[in-house]
Amino acid sequence: MPIQFETKKISGSARTGLLETPHGIVETPAFMPVGTQGTVKAISPRELHECGSQIILSNAYHLYLRPGHELIRKFGGLHRFMGWDCPILTDSGGYQVYSLADLNRIDDEGVLFQSHIDGSRHLFTPAKVVEVQAALGSDIGMVLDDCPGYPCTRERAAEAVRRSYLWAASSREAFEELAPEEITNRGQTLFGIIQGSVYPDLRSESARRITDLDFEGYAVGGLSVGEPKEAMVDMMLHSIGDLPPDRPRYVMGIGYPLDIIEAVLAGADLFDCVIPTRLGRNGTAFTDEGRLQVRNSEFSKQDRPIEEGCDCHTCRHFSRAYIRHLHNVGEILGVRLTTIHNIHFFASLLSRIRESIESDSLEKLRGRFYNFY
Amino acid sequence: MPIQFETKKISGSARTGLLETPHGIVETPAFMPVGTQGTVKAISPRELHECGSQIILSNAYHLYLRPGHELIRKFGGLHRFMGWDCPILTDSGGYQVYSLADLNRIDDEGVLFQSHIDGSRHLFTPAKVVEVQAALGSDIGMVLDDCPGYPCTRERAAEAVRRSYLWAASSREAFEELAPEEITNRGQTLFGIIQGSVYPDLRSESARRITDLDFEGYAVGGLSVGEPKEAMVDMMLHSIGDLPPDRPRYVMGIGYPLDIIEAVLAGADLFDCVIPTRLGRNGTAFTDEGRLQVRNSEFSKQDRPIEEGCDCHTCRHFSRAYIRHLHNVGEILGVRLTTIHNIHFFASLLSRIRESIESDSLEKLRGRFYNFY
Repeated sequence: MPIQFETKKISGSARTGLLETPHGIVETPAFMPVGTQGTVKAISPRELHECGSQIILSNAYHLYLRPGHELIRKFGGLHRFMGWDCPILTDSGGYQVYSLADLNRIDDEGVLFQSHIDGSRHLFTPAKVVEVQAALGSDIGMVLDDCPGYPCTRERAAEAVRRSYLWAASSREAFEELAPEEITNRGQTLFGIIQGSVYPDLRSESARRITDLDFEGYAVGGLSVGEPKEAMVDMMLHSIGDLPPDRPRYVMGIGYPLDIIEAVLAGADLFDCVIPTRLGRNGTAFTDEGRLQVRNSEFSKQDRPIEEGCDCHTCRHFSRAYIRHLHNVGEILGVRLTTIHNIHFFASLLSRIRESIESDSLEKLRGRFYNFY
Repeated sequence: MPIQFETKKISGSARTGLLETPHGIVETPAFMPVGTQGTVKAISPRELHECGSQIILSNAYHLYLRPGHELIRKFGGLHRFMGWDCPILTDSGGYQVYSLADLNRIDDEGVLFQSHIDGSRHLFTPAKVVEVQAALGSDIGMVLDDCPGYPCTRERAAEAVRRSYLWAASSREAFEELAPEEITNRGQTLFGIIQGSVYPDLRSESARRITDLDFEGYAVGGLSVGEPKEAMVDMMLHSIGDLPPDRPRYVMGIGYPLDIIEAVLAGADLFDCVIPTRLGRNGTAFTDEGRLQVRNSEFSKQDRPIEEGCDCHTCRHFSRAYIRHLHNVGEILGVRLTTIHNIHFFASLLSRIRESIESDSLEKLRGRFYNFY
């Protein structure tokens, strides 16, 4: 059985919902920490649970290259391989082949690229990427999309819209034609992706075409690829509005707390972003009063947690001074503790967002973050 | 109240015992994981508890430099600062100024050295090192010792024996004269250290002089500093035999499983070594069948734990293939998982050593490890 999505409370365009997957129910709106290589960097599955994360994202591109999707298939899928028994969404690699790999050729057949690790040559076709994700057995897979960077000419954006549609159609077909032995997770569901760069009419065209294919859920792609912040927000809100309300809407690669709240206000349900983990490794901690850089010397004598009242493992056990010391001397535990706090902060933020929707007060929560993020 | 040491079962020269400290009781023989900078590298206090560790070692030298012992004093001591409420032994820095710092001058007053971090100049006298450890509030502090490397002439070794005695006497005096406000842990105890390099008669002389000062416990120092393995074992066994049986005997910087068993057979009670953590970070895992290098490609498809039957967090949840993948792609979780397994392996080894003493079968356990370590 594919995923089931049910909206609970609607407040303006914002909504709470329940996304039922083969590995459990996700309360939406939800944030997905990024576990690119089959691990959310620096933290363990147990810590992820403790942080309140209900679903994570992983990357077909990376896992295809190392350790290989066939190996993960043999292990019964990514859930078992990495020891995470809750929902997983896998990204298709459309963005990674642009941002990481050495892109050799892109045409309607697919993307020919060279691995960012060893330069080996690979072809990603829509069907190949469906096959890879079927092996991984994620609960939600994404179609391969043509995801150009920024700046992007109108011509190139139009081509990406056309090609992403072709690929979405081929993906869908390949997904339906998977042989039983290729399928690790019988309940896996495929989502479509909207492109169109910073051109509103192209974005709407992409939404029309992709939704015509009738996926179980839709993602707004091609954002946060280098465009100005304002354009990112405009296009995000525009694209969310183009998507059918009865399906989960996923905004890819977003983002900062305020961006998430804006997107939820427009009706978005799912998010992923590397910032809580990437910034956490660098010593940046998210709080309700903005970001802290724990390496700063002002924290060296502070005998209080990163955030008062926070009930994450880090804030319950360790002082700012200790965490600052760990980062200062390059100890792994420092990286772990700030990552845990950030992942918990995002899980908790989304929980507060859901509560605010239930009480029709999301605008108020937005006001609280307006000056900080 | 200083530490209390009580032997329980004596089997040949080996013995089990209970070492009572202000932060709880340690069953001996015990292994102390090394938490040089106020953290056992890569793992958390909770994980240390879960691994079965009862006591850890930290380094006065490192903590004096960063974050500074005065800061840790203000935080109520190292236990609270690092979130570890079980016993801590701190090393004095005698070895670190030799192995890490730029040694400028050594004479009977103390050691003048330049920090390995920023080149700043510092003087460690016996009294200074006592003061630093009093601030840290460890349960067991070590006297400053003159710890030359290897090779070491007989003359230099004799000088180290003479000077280590002078310093031990000064340390003892300084320890007794600490002002109440300098003392973080009222039950802190000071141990003496035996030197003498690879010269048995000098080692015995050192033991006679240091034990004359009547410390609550004694350590065999100056080993594992570059000397041949055979000389290390000979000197270790020789020095252990020189120490009074009613006090805890601590062999510093040792070691591999077989070395630990040999030392226990000779009557040693405490050990510390970086190998479980250092090798763990590098992907080397200790097992009853010897060491594994999890990066090796042979593990890439193995769907079983590092060690069958091991009940550490790593072996209960993750396969060799997954751990190999994590190390292969440079993920922190890989480092964590092999470190956890190794720390657990050593805690479990010491537990088995204690059981073997209780049942007079330690020679048998030794035979089991003879071919592997």
